[in-house]
This record gives sequence, structure tokens and C-alpha cells, in this order.
Amino acid sequence: MDLEKKLAAEASIDFIKDGMVVGLGSGSTVNWMVRKLGEKVKQGLNIRGIPSSKKTERLALEVGVPLTDFASVDCIDIAIDGADEIDGNLNLLKGGGGSLVREKVVDVNADQFIVIIDQSKVVEELGELPLPIEVLQFGWEIIAKKIAELGGETVIRIKDEKRFISDNGNYILDCKFGKITKPEELHEKLKLLTGVVETGIFTNMVDKVIIGRKDEVEVLEK
Amino acid sequence: MDLEKKLAAEASIDFIKDGMVVGLGSGSTVNWMVRKLGEKVKQGLNIRGIPSSKKTERLALEVGVPLTDFASVDCIDIAIDGADEIDGNLNLLKGGGGSLVREKVVDVNADQFIVIIDQSKVVEELGELPLPIEVLQFGWEIIAKKIAELGGETVIRIKDEKRFISDNGNYILDCKFGKITKPEELHEKLKLLTGVVETGIFTNMVDKVIIGRKDEVEVLEK
Repeated sequence: MDLEKKLAAEASIDFIKDGMVVGLGSGSTVNWMVRKLGEKVKQGLNIRGIPSSKKTERLALEVGVPLTDFASVDCIDIAIDGADEIDGNLNLLKGGGGSLVREKVVDVNADQFIVIIDQSKVVEELGELPLPIEVLQFGWEIIAKKIAELGGETVIRIKDEKRFISDNGNYILDCKFGKITKPEELHEKLKLLTGVVETGIFTNMVDKVIIGRKDEVEVLEK
Repeated sequence: MDLEKKLAAEASIDFIKDGMVVGLGSGSTVNWMVRKLGEKVKQGLNIRGIPSSKKTERLALEVGVPLTDFASVDCIDIAIDGADEIDGNLNLLKGGGGSLVREKVVDVNADQFIVIIDQSKVVEELGELPLPIEVLQFGWEIIAKKIAELGGETVIRIKDEKRFISDNGNYILDCKFGKITKPEELHEKLKLLTGVVETGIFTNMVDKVIIGRKDEVEVLEK
């Protein structure tokens, strides 16, 4: 799986051109991309990255990818990010790593959004994994009840025996909805709940998917 | 105006019954209510309050209103809160005080929601004041651009020469949309933007409005 991740990650580098502002996603596949991008920068590629998590930011600094921020740029030319699941319509389920909101802010605002995954992430319908939903700390108990009314079996995410806190200071509820047949509709219902900051359903965003399959890559376009 | 606020606030106390869990809003009118509630508690009224802001929490503790939280209760029997504007359909514009998100979490989840205002808050259509929108700190610049695309002229809220930070750690954008003729539609478009945590438009929530007018109160029901 690591080889497949690496293959997809490295193939995505070809789409990054000199002068671009690059949204840097999060997760193990993205980490391969960031490392490769660091090499390219050392060879002279002139880009600036906007990291979507503190983890990615640290790695980018470590491998020499120059960073910028939303205050300094007018647009993001390309965003490259991973996913936990992708369905046949190129809808994504994301958030296992806990950075779904910042990832979505970066990905949704990029002119071009490329997803890099290994083939284990391809599913017929989203929902084999629980859907991560970022919610306010304040009143999360009652927000969880509202999500349950929409059919979600919710568990608050725990890390190191404490409630996991996102980079934005919020909690994450991991919610089992079973097969998600209407991802956009479910996302909208959830996002409209007071106290829900964002969901891990990403629809109508993906331009290209690069899938690592054994020792080659497959590229799907929207 | 202070007398009108006080009249409306004190009239709302009649709706609070022994044993209730009471959502405590925020703002100058609510402060009158909390003080009066403190007196009632001293006289033997047995209630528990859930404050919607740190300011209200401090005042409630000061005047002896016992507090609880979402972890300890199954429901909120009644919420009493102020508003910056209320239109003829009992839609509210809130958030001037900066606590709109917690207020909405409390108000929307209460079995009964009573608004207390002085008559200066009554408008034909919302939007004479800018609409407060709570947004993530991360990427707020690009979120502001998206709001501008929906017609809002946005200004980031400043307090004491620094960006104002909400109780949830987010920024507030004060957005001029002109007259808001379709509040529910505008709220939904805004709330669905990635990075928007909540808006100050409260629709389909109010059960009763108590308006202080000179030396009397008027009560409107849904």
C-alpha cells in the first residue's frame, strides 16, 4: 500500500508548475507528495505551499517547501490531497486524520483539485468508514443527538485517552450512517445543523484522481 | 431604552417554572433577566441555567443562578435571549455581542424560545445592521471573498485594536447585505460555505417575543 501511495503522490507532482500556489493536503499519501515536492524545490522549482494541517506544515518546513498563507495570495492554483474513501462519482469521505475542515478550506478554494490515493480507498458507495463531523465543543452532546436524528450513530473521537481536539479547537464525532447513497444531501443536512462546523463529505470538488494500483497509476478525470 | 429592556426582561420571568432548565442568552436585555432570575432563585425558585456566553455565565454565578451544562441535561425547557433586530415574521438578526453561535446552540435546542427586546429592535426587514458571521480563523480571507460573492460587504470585527475572537476561538465578519428579504435562504447559502461556522440569522425558532414599549410590554406569539 505504501508503494501505491508513493506512486500516486509522485505522479501528482507533474501537475505542479513553476510559480504555482499549491494547497498541501494531509495524511500519509500527501506526506510522500510533500517530500517529493521538497526535492523538486531543491532542484529549482519555484512554488509556494499552503498547508492544510499543522502536521503537513511541519513536514513541509522540514523538507524545504516554502510556505505562504491566505493573507498573502489571491488564489490557490492547485490542491493535492488524499482521501479515506472515494466513490464512483468522485465524492470523497475524509477526516480520519482529523484535519478535514482545513483540508476542505484549501481544496474547495483551489482552481484545480487533485486527489491521490492507493486503490484500497476506492469504494462503490461512501460510508464503509464512519463519517467524521467537526463540531463545537460547546453543546456537542446535543449536537450529537441532532446527528443521531438524521440516522448517524455517533462516537466522539478519543486520542490518547482524551477527546481529540482539531486544529480549530473543535471536537470530531465519527458517525456511522451505513451506505451513504446521497452524499451531497446528507452533507447539507448535517452542515446546516447549528454547532456543526464541517463534515468529511467532499462533493463536486474533485478534478482529477490519481490511484496507485500495484506498480502503476491510473488517472481519472471528472 | 433601558427601562424598556428591563420591562421585557422581567416579564419573561413569568414563563420560567419550577424545575425548568433555562437557556440564558446574552446581552444587555438578558442581563436584566438574569438579575431578576437571581432574585427569584433566592426566593426559592428551583431552576438550572445553561449560559450561552462566558459573560452571561459570570453574571449568573454572581447573582446566584445555579448553572448546569449539556452533559447533565436531556433538554432545555425554555431559552430566553435578546436580539439585535426582529422582523415581522419573527426572524432575528443576532451577534452584535459576539456570542451568536453559543446563543443559537442554546436557543435552537430549547423546547420554547422567548425573545426579549426593546421596541428599537423591531424592523420591517432584517439588515439595517450588518449581519455577523462566525468564521474559522484559518482561511478567513478566502471565506470573506466567498461571502462577498453572495453580496456581502464584509469587515472583520476588531475589538481593542485586535481581531475579535469568539468564545469558540473564531473570527466574526460583519457583513452588509442591504435589506435581507429572504433570511432563511441567505442563511443556508452562507452556512453551507466551508469555513462558515454559523450566521446571525435565526429563522423558524421564536415562540414568543416580549417587546418593551415605553412603560408596558407587548407580547407577540408565533
